[in-house]
Amino acid sequence: MPRDLGELRTLVERYLEQLTFAPELGDLEQVVRYSLESGGKRIRPVMTLAVGEAIGAQPDRCLPAAAAVELVHTFSLVHDDLPALDDDNERRGRPSTHVAYGEAAALLAGDALLAEAFRLALSYPSPAVGRELARGTLGMIGGQHRDVVGETTDLATLHRLKTGCLFGAAVGVALWAAEVPAREHAPWRAFGDELGLLFQIVDDLLDGDGYAVLHGVERARELADEAAGRAAERLSTIPGDSSVLAELIGSLAARTS
Amino acid sequence: MPRDLGELRTLVERYLEQLTFAPELGDLEQVVRYSLESGGKRIRPVMTLAVGEAIGAQPDRCLPAAAAVELVHTFSLVHDDLPALDDDNERRGRPSTHVAYGEAAALLAGDALLAEAFRLALSYPSPAVGRELARGTLGMIGGQHRDVVGETTDLATLHRLKTGCLFGAAVGVALWAAEVPAREHAPWRAFGDELGLLFQIVDDLLDGDGYAVLHGVERARELADEAAGRAAERLSTIPGDSSVLAELIGSLAARTS
Repeated sequence: MPRDLGELRTLVERYLEQLTFAPELGDLEQVVRYSLESGGKRIRPVMTLAVGEAIGAQPDRCLPAAAAVELVHTFSLVHDDLPALDDDNERRGRPSTHVAYGEAAALLAGDALLAEAFRLALSYPSPAVGRELARGTLGMIGGQHRDVVGETTDLATLHRLKTGCLFGAAVGVALWAAEVPAREHAPWRAFGDELGLLFQIVDDLLDGDGYAVLHGVERARELADEAAGRAAERLSTIPGDSSVLAELIGSLAARTS
Repeated sequence: MPRDLGELRTLVERYLEQLTFAPELGDLEQVVRYSLESGGKRIRPVMTLAVGEAIGAQPDRCLPAAAAVELVHTFSLVHDDLPALDDDNERRGRPSTHVAYGEAAALLAGDALLAEAFRLALSYPSPAVGRELARGTLGMIGGQHRDVVGETTDLATLHRLKTGCLFGAAVGVALWAAEVPAREHAPWRAFGDELGLLFQIVDDLLDGDGYAVLHGVERARELADEAAGRAAERLSTIPGDSSVLAELIGSLAARTS
């Protein structure tokens, strides 16, 4: 009987709480921990564990990779919140890292989160998990830059980079951590793409921007449901017990925050 | 006949010029290139190649690792120059990255340099090069944070972190890239430590701070020469043709900029 989403999220939270950081970070560690304990939904690392679950890998095997993806996500939030970028003073009802600890510490804590993410990804015997993480991170940074400079990229490309690349990496690192041969990755990656798109459209519906503005609320809702449908279809072609991933699709489609 | 320092530096420059970046970076690539083409002395990557040379590895083998270390160094300069940290408007006679391209682009370019550094380090079949880079990077970030918050760490610890960790990584990545067994690393690492210390004391002498203030100019000069002497002594115990590393010690001890 595979674990459900709630159990996987608990595993992620516990792993992140118990994570040890490079002792050289000194007092910066508490800034890193503050950023990481932001009470997010942990969607990306849960995805990594859920993919691992579906292919029969024990969570222990995928947890460092899952945490690495969450650290990259957190690094991007800490830097995005800085005055030089989005200048957000709050993050999930708490002061942003730079408000709580100052800009210098927030900048360095973001840097440390990225380096720690690679340290985790490099705890595997093969460099493949780290390579996947580097690709996803670079795509995300490229998307963020396009957004910041207001480059006239189409919305789909912007989102594929800003959100999709790290969602893709959340799936990819599970495949490498569980040593799934590369020739079997394609359907998984197609599934990850649909999940990333679903997440983004629902995000825009909740925020009232992006897809919701471009296509209108009603059509955006249809597009989200279509992405959920395609994700489920992809899943049905992949062998293994994917019940927890089906639950994840449902939960992403129905989320209200 | 091993290559001399000038030849190694030319190899580094050429490799950095021809480096391809993740296409997803889009226009951010030119900000990354601007930061990287800053006309620095390339001491760290030259160290990596020189260690490779001494242990009989062809430069091609060590170049990705050498470049990875230089990208980490460059990332740290770009972020350090930001208003939130040192607020430096110039870097080697040119506008700093944030002055030339804005703070948002500089922040993201620094992030991209760090992720690209790991992409390079992960081009090796073993994750050891990347692990070494992560360790060195985290130490450097911890040192930078201590410096920023004015923590009452002793100067030696501060410099060991801020400068020494990445110098150590410059040596370490060469050892892993050339597949030197871990049991043979100790004398090399001791050599790297002395070289890092030498570099730092001379830096302080040139800037008139740190060791030059703490010990006075005369005593600091003696300390630099002692570190150079110990580095040379370490070198004499290591088999292989280390003439270019001996040249490097001399060049670090005598540098005037």
